[in-house]
Order: sequence, then C-alpha cells, then structure tokens
Amino acid sequence: MSTLKTSPITLGYISEYLDAELVGCADKVIIGLSTLHSASSDQLSFLANSKYIQSLKDTSAGALILSQKNLASCPCDALVMDDPYWGYARASRLFRNDDHQPGVHPAAIIADSATIPASASIAPGVVIEEGVVLGEGVIIGPGCVLGKHVRLGDECHLYANVTLYHGVEMGSQSIIHSGSVIGADGFGYAPHEGCWEKIEQFGSVRIGQGVEIGANTTIDRGALDDTVIGDGVIIDNQIQIGHNVVIGDYSAVASSTAIAGSTKIGRYCTIAGAVAIAGHVDIADNVHIKGMSMVSKSIAEPGVYASGTGGVMVNREWQKNAARFRKLNALVERVSVLEKKLSQANS
Amino acid sequence: MSTLKTSPITLGYISEYLDAELVGCADKVIIGLSTLHSASSDQLSFLANSKYIQSLKDTSAGALILSQKNLASCPCDALVMDDPYWGYARASRLFRNDDHQPGVHPAAIIADSATIPASASIAPGVVIEEGVVLGEGVIIGPGCVLGKHVRLGDECHLYANVTLYHGVEMGSQSIIHSGSVIGADGFGYAPHEGCWEKIEQFGSVRIGQGVEIGANTTIDRGALDDTVIGDGVIIDNQIQIGHNVVIGDYSAVASSTAIAGSTKIGRYCTIAGAVAIAGHVDIADNVHIKGMSMVSKSIAEPGVYASGTGGVMVNREWQKNAARFRKLNALVERVSVLEKKLSQANS
Amino acid sequence: MSTLKTSPITLGYISEYLDAELVGCADKVIIGLSTLHSASSDQLSFLANSKYIQSLKDTSAGALILSQKNLASCPCDALVMDDPYWGYARASRLFRNDDHQPGVHPAAIIADSATIPASASIAPGVVIEEGVVLGEGVIIGPGCVLGKHVRLGDECHLYANVTLYHGVEMGSQSIIHSGSVIGADGFGYAPHEGCWEKIEQFGSVRIGQGVEIGANTTIDRGALDDTVIGDGVIIDNQIQIGHNVVIGDYSAVASSTAIAGSTKIGRYCTIAGAVAIAGHVDIADNVHIKGMSMVSKSIAEPGVYASGTGGVMVNREWQKNAARFRKLNALVERVSVLEKKLSQANS
Repeated sequence: MSTLKTSPITLGYISEYLDAELVGCADKVIIGLSTLHSASSDQLSFLANSKYIQSLKDTSAGALILSQKNLASCPCDALVMDDPYWGYARASRLFRNDDHQPGVHPAAIIADSATIPASASIAPGVVIEEGVVLGEGVIIGPGCVLGKHVRLGDECHLYANVTLYHGVEMGSQSIIHSGSVIGADGFGYAPHEGCWEKIEQFGSVRIGQGVEIGANTTIDRGALDDTVIGDGVIIDNQIQIGHNVVIGDYSAVASSTAIAGSTKIGRYCTIAGAVAIAGHVDIADNVHIKGMSMVSKSIAEPGVYASGTGGVMVNREWQKNAARFRKLNALVERVSVLEKKLSQANS
Repeated sequence: MSTLKTSPITLGYISEYLDAELVGCADKVIIGLSTLHSASSDQLSFLANSKYIQSLKDTSAGALILSQKNLASCPCDALVMDDPYWGYARASRLFRNDDHQPGVHPAAIIADSATIPASASIAPGVVIEEGVVLGEGVIIGPGCVLGKHVRLGDECHLYANVTLYHGVEMGSQSIIHSGSVIGADGFGYAPHEGCWEKIEQFGSVRIGQGVEIGANTTIDRGALDDTVIGDGVIIDNQIQIGHNVVIGDYSAVASSTAIAGSTKIGRYCTIAGAVAIAGHVDIADNVHIKGMSMVSKSIAEPGVYASGTGGVMVNREWQKNAARFRKLNALVERVSVLEKKLSQANS
Repeated sequence: MSTLKTSPITLGYISEYLDAELVGCADKVIIGLSTLHSASSDQLSFLANSKYIQSLKDTSAGALILSQKNLASCPCDALVMDDPYWGYARASRLFRNDDHQPGVHPAAIIADSATIPASASIAPGVVIEEGVVLGEGVIIGPGCVLGKHVRLGDECHLYANVTLYHGVEMGSQSIIHSGSVIGADGFGYAPHEGCWEKIEQFGSVRIGQGVEIGANTTIDRGALDDTVIGDGVIIDNQIQIGHNVVIGDYSAVASSTAIAGSTKIGRYCTIAGAVAIAGHVDIADNVHIKGMSMVSKSIAEPGVYASGTGGVMVNREWQKNAARFRKLNALVERVSVLEKKLSQANS
C-alpha cells in the first residue's frame, strides 16, 4: 500500500462538498478512503451496489456514503446521496496528495522561447523545446519531452516520461500518464513497385479539456488534417489511435484497443478492452463495443455491438468447435440439401 | 494543426522532382500540402482515387497531382503522373521541416569511446554508452538511451525517449519513433519444478536500412542468434516482435500486432492490425494477413488469409450466434444424424 | 550479433555448476553458448528435444548438454543431465556480461531522503524522488524515474527508461525492462450525467521477488487496495495489467495480453499471447489459456482453455464461413425444424 499520507478532513466538510445528507457527527475526522472490508474507524467507505448490503454489518468504517434506501443498514455515520459511487469518486479528490512545488528544476532543459508560468512545476530531466506554451499550474513529470510549439492548457498534468511531438495541443485539466507518445507520425506510405514511400505527416494532435490518457498509449499526428480527441474523453493504457482519428466528447476507450486511421467515433461511446477498429469507419454517438470485438464497418445506430466466439471453453471442446467453424459454409449447404430433400419427400 | 511553417517551393521545381508533366504555371509558389477540401490557393493537393473526382470542382487548391485521365476535370494547375498517390508521398518530402542542428547538446551524456560524427545531432538528456558508433547525419532525440556498442547507419533518426539495448545495429536512413524499445531480453525461460529459469539472451537485433518503426513498439533481442528486420520494412505502433523473429524486406506490420519468437515472415508481406502470430511459424513471401487474425501454423502459399468471426453485430444477435458456436460440433453431429436418417428413409 | 565478449570458463566448472556428469575434458575452455547449427569448437550447445538428434552429427560445438539417452549420438564432449534445457538455462547465467559499476552517476538526480546503498549502480538521467529505498546491488538504467517512497529489494535491475510511480514496491532479484510503467492510475471513473468522474487511485503495486517484467508493459496501481504480482511471476512485453489485479506465484503472461481490473489469476498459470481477460474474474491455479483467447468468466478448474475460430484460412474460404457465423442461430433453428419434421415423418 502506498505510504503517502492523506489529509484529515471532517465528515461535515465532506458532506457539504458532496451535497450529501449527513447522518452522524460533523466533527468526525476522516483520514482517507477504503473498502468496506478494510476501512478503519477513521476512514470513509461506500456502498454503491445493494447486493453487497450484507457486508455492511462487518465493516469497521467510520462513515459510509450510501443511498437512502440502504441507510437503515448503516452501522456507522452516513453520507446519504442518490449516487453513492459518484459521491465516492468526488470524495476521492479530497484525499489526493498533490504536493508538486511550482518552479522549474535546474536539471530541466527549457528553450528560451518557451512560455512557462511561475505556477508550473517542471521536474528534472524534462526537455521543453522552442515555442512551447504552458498554462497556469501545469505539472510536467521527470523525463517528459515537449516538442516545438506544444501548447498545454491550465492545470494539465503529464506524468514522467511522456513524449509530445511538435505542435501537439491539449486543453485544460487534462492528464497523460507515463510512457504515452502523442503526435508520432501516422502509418502513411504509398506503395510503389514493392516499396513503401513514406508520406510526411503534417497534421498534429488536438486533445480537449478534462481528458485523461493512460500509460504507454500512442496517438498519431494527422497526415494533413489533425487527429482530434474531444473533451472529457477517457483513454486507458496501451491504446493505439491512428492518424486523423476523431473521438467525440465523453467517450471512453479501454486498454489495449487499436483504432486505425481516419476512423470517427461519436460522443458518449464506450469501447471495451482489446477491441480492433478498422480505418475509415464512422461510429455513431452512444455506441458501445464489447471486449475483444472487431469493428470493420461503420455503425450508424446507437446500441451494443460485439463479435467473436465469446469466452473460453475447455480446450478439447473448443478444438472440435473451431474445426467445425472451418467448414461452416459446407455445413449450411448440407442443411440446405436436407431441407430440399425433405421438402421433396413431403410433397 | 501544427504551427510549424513549411518552405515555399515552385510548381516547376516540384514537377521536375516528381518527373510529372506540369500543366500550368511553373513559377507558382506552393507553401505546403493539404486535402482537396482544405487546400488554399498556395497549397498542393492530389486526386489518387477517381471516385472522389466530384470533389475537384469544390477545391481551392493551387495545384493538383492527378493522372492523365482526370486532367480534364482539374480546376487549377496540374502535375500529371501515372501514380498520383506516390507523387503526393514523394512531394511530401519537399515540405518536411527538419531543422535539427548538428552537434552534441551539453546535457547529453556520451561515453568517451563512442564515435559521434560532427554531422550528428544529439539532443539533451541522451545517454550514449561505450563503443557506440553513429553514422553521418544521425539525429538522436531527447531522452534516448543507446546501450554499449549500438551501431546506427547514416541519417538514422531516433525520436525522443527511444531505448536501444547493447549491441543493436541499424542500417542507414532508418527511423524509430518515441517510446520504442529495441533489444530487450526475449521471453525465454526453462520451466523446472514449477519455476521459470531465466535463459540469458545473447543474440542482438539487426535492423536493415530504410526501415521505419513506430511508437511504443518492442523488438526483443535473440536468444543465441539475432532478431532480424529486413530492409525497407515498415512497422507501426504498439507492436511486439519476439526474439529471433525474422521479417523479410519490404514487409509491413500494422499496429498492435504480436509476433511470437522464432517466427519468420517473408518479403512483401502485409500484416494488418491486431494480428497475433504464434512462435516458430514460417510465412512465405507475399502473404497478406487481415486484421485481428490469428496465425498458428506456417503459411507456404502467397495469398490473403484471415480468421475470426468478422465484424461486430448487434449484441443481442451476436450472443445467440456465439452461444451456438459453443455447440457447433454437436450441431454437425445432429446434421450427420439427419443425413443418415434421410438417406435410410429414401433407400 | 552482440559484440559483447563473454568470459572463458572450463567445462569442468560448468559441470560442477550444473551438477551434470562430464564426459570429456574438464580443462576445455568454453567462451560462450550457441545453437547446434552455429556453435564453434569453443562454444557450448545443447540438445533438449530428441527430434533434433540428427543435427548432432553436423554440429561443431565444443561440448553439448544432453540427456543420457542421447549421449551415444554426441560427437563431442558432453554434459549429461536429466533436463538439458534447464541446464542450458542455468549455464547461460555463467556467460552473462554484467559489468555495471557501483555508484551514482553525477547526472542522476537523487532526493536527499532517498536511501541508496554504496553497492547500487545508478545511471545518468535517473530521477529518484523522496523517501525511495533501494536494496544492495540494485541497478537502475539511464532515464528511469522512481517516484516517492518506491522500495526495491536487493539486486533488482531496472533497464533504461522504466517509470515507477510513488509507493511501488518490488522484492529482491526482480527485473523490469525498458519502457514499462508500474503504478499509473487505474482506469476508474464514476459515470455521472454523461461524464466520467475520476476516482483517485490510492492503492499501490506490490511485486514479489524473482519477478521479470518485459518492455513497455503497464501495471496499474490499485484503487483502494494494491495490485499484486506474486513471486517468480514472468510477464512479457506490451502487457496491460489493470488495477487490483492479483497474479499468483510462478504464473507466466505472454506478450500483448490485457488483464482488466480486479481479476485474480492463480499460481502456476500460463496465459499465452494476445489474450484478453475481463475484469472481476477469478482464475484457479494451474489454468492455461491459449493464444488470442478471451476470458469473460471465472475459471474454477485447472486445465487448458481457448476461444476463437482457430488459425487463419484462405480469405475466400474464411469469408464464407464468417458470413455463415452471422446466421448460426438461424441455422440451428433450421436443423431443429428438420429434426422435428423427420421425427414426425418417421412416427
């Protein structure tokens, strides 16, 4: 467990912050969040799903966020609100331990023409090239590289070892985790007599505000126009986003998914993990793709979509089924023959 | 959009460079490339696919690269050539903005025994270990680490935060994008009494000339012999290439593909995105694997190959089909019984 | 091939080290390991699989590790033991070229409160934050970033450009390859009125001893409790391990696999490459998942499991089968109708 301390805060303060009804002691000091199982009497926990209501009687938590309908089962102080999981998320912000000091570390390399406000925190080993403009309160972790003319809005946070190629822009309060690379060249080549002629990538990447990008994710710069990530989009780890992709506001992409070039994803979509989306595909708003699916064509209607054979089976059984798949077309023809014969026999 | 400026060049110069027929004004100055839709009167665009010919009448481009058959529809100056997409690719080189200054930044750490020509450009935060040899005009971006005895040919370009382990070699004019790791240990262990005994990896990685490797890709060093990437190979982002893999000249591997150890891929192959290729497999020249396929056996014949269930369906429909897949073998047996019964009934 | 030299060692020494029977000259000097095909007379090779026994007569190796049953075919000196592949693995350790010098490079940035033993080797460009504690003989490659209160046991080795977030702990003799990111925030958000409310991630990552983690792999920190990797676990490249995942001792995870949050994997499991495992799934000990499978539910019994349609087919054939999959449920209904009709006809 992290050895970082969290700050003491009273239940009364949390109640006001969450706009939750407090049933209990406003002066009780809460030092952190924990699970129902692990929470101690100075920690806050939550019940988001009524199916875990039996766990309440065993918790040692000092207080719980829960909904009105479960209040009667609460063995301790309570913060009552309609959406306890959202309350837990919001409360978690209060216990962040964010102690970055403003200032530029002497072991950072900053181009003279870069604009770095005094409120920004620049760690050692950072390289900031010409013409970069950072907003107020930006935090840049060790080893990050910001290419020429990168622009970051206020309160953006790059964790260690993030690479932003030249010209990448990001709105305020967005986060990028370590190892991610934004703005590398898209995979663009013209085939010619068996060789691949590289197409220079002149677009950039524009990322909205309130975006979070996980670790070791890659978002390529556009070929001529830009690659665009909308506001409030959340993108997990190990994701590939090709050149000229557009992702609409508030969509979510889970880990290890690959989105090929020029594909457009609407707003409020969720793409589960390990999905592959072909290039030049248009996906409407409110589309939800299940894990490990392949999207090879545009999707015009909101809804839930999937492909594949579903979850694992015992290998011996699976092998038989997979072998049959290889002759599925022939099977259909066998069935057609049977239907025809039976139809003739009955006529 | 990138705020980097591109250089002004005349149409006449581009025409000669491309060996294209100029129909228009040789002195017209072109400042960059753009799409048909976005190009302004001082930009060059192209028509590679005749199905977009209707877009020509709306373009404001100053000039277009197109083929003879579409020349009549060109509303502006024209550069006529057989393969306009190749022309666009080649023309893109003219508008690159490559302003790396030769020299070693004082905040780079270079071993005394490394050979760095005066024409090389070494950014801050670079670490170059003993015995490294760089060719003329090599560009090493910030934060790159080159292990002992790495050798790079002339005009190689490593973008920021690339890691090359000891002994990796790369031919001239090859490119590696940020976050890629070349030469980490292959995944080699001997199982013994429930534990994994690590096998030291003594081979290296040899990369040909004119290769491009995307961002956050990994290519492991060989166990005893080397891992080998041929000339002119293009490798996208987030790709895993296991130890002792050999990829033939001019093959292409799209993003998020995984190639397990000791597999050999021929020349002029294309491996689409999110493909998984098992280890110890031999793939012939001119083999093309479609997206999200699994290759578990050798492929001896050129051609196009695929696996999986195809693209997504509406989830409700998909669930029924996937459930049926789990009993596909039983279904075939049911059909066999029917065939037998009907055959008996008819005899 | 790597140009690094390996040390000369006698066969007699290797024989004792491996506890193998030496049939040959104890004073013969061996300078390295190689394959049967490439080995020279001063190199050691091995025969682990009797099916390659025909290769023995063509080898120029100076000595071979092999089993008693194949000794008669050995054309050179022999080291005889029951498990030659394990012998090869152990012998490989003798030929490692590990020449890291203890000490902190002046171009490393170390917080005053960090504990760095004199036996540790800290490369240039490393950033070590407050409260970090390193064990004896730890090696930290160039460009690594160790966040606050990271703790590494004795003889851990981080290759270049590894990022450990605050509070990550790792047991002794564990290895992490370049580009891996341990302890980034898990992908946790509460959906609320179409937006994603970030849930701060207060857990950490605890990694056991004797673990090896490949390149560009990501392991997220836990939300409230920790993400846990057991002792002796081996994890390949490009892998995503979500928050609060637990992986049991001595399990192995091959490249490009994604494991979603809160999933528990038992001990002695093997997860092949490009597998996707859903969140909140429990997998028993001794479970083996084949390549490119999807695990969407818990697995309670040891055994081998798989999903998918198997390896690639010629595209023309595959397209027909994949199209039929889309109507598989309808096909089953057609077969049911036939069965019913035939049953009626026969009654």
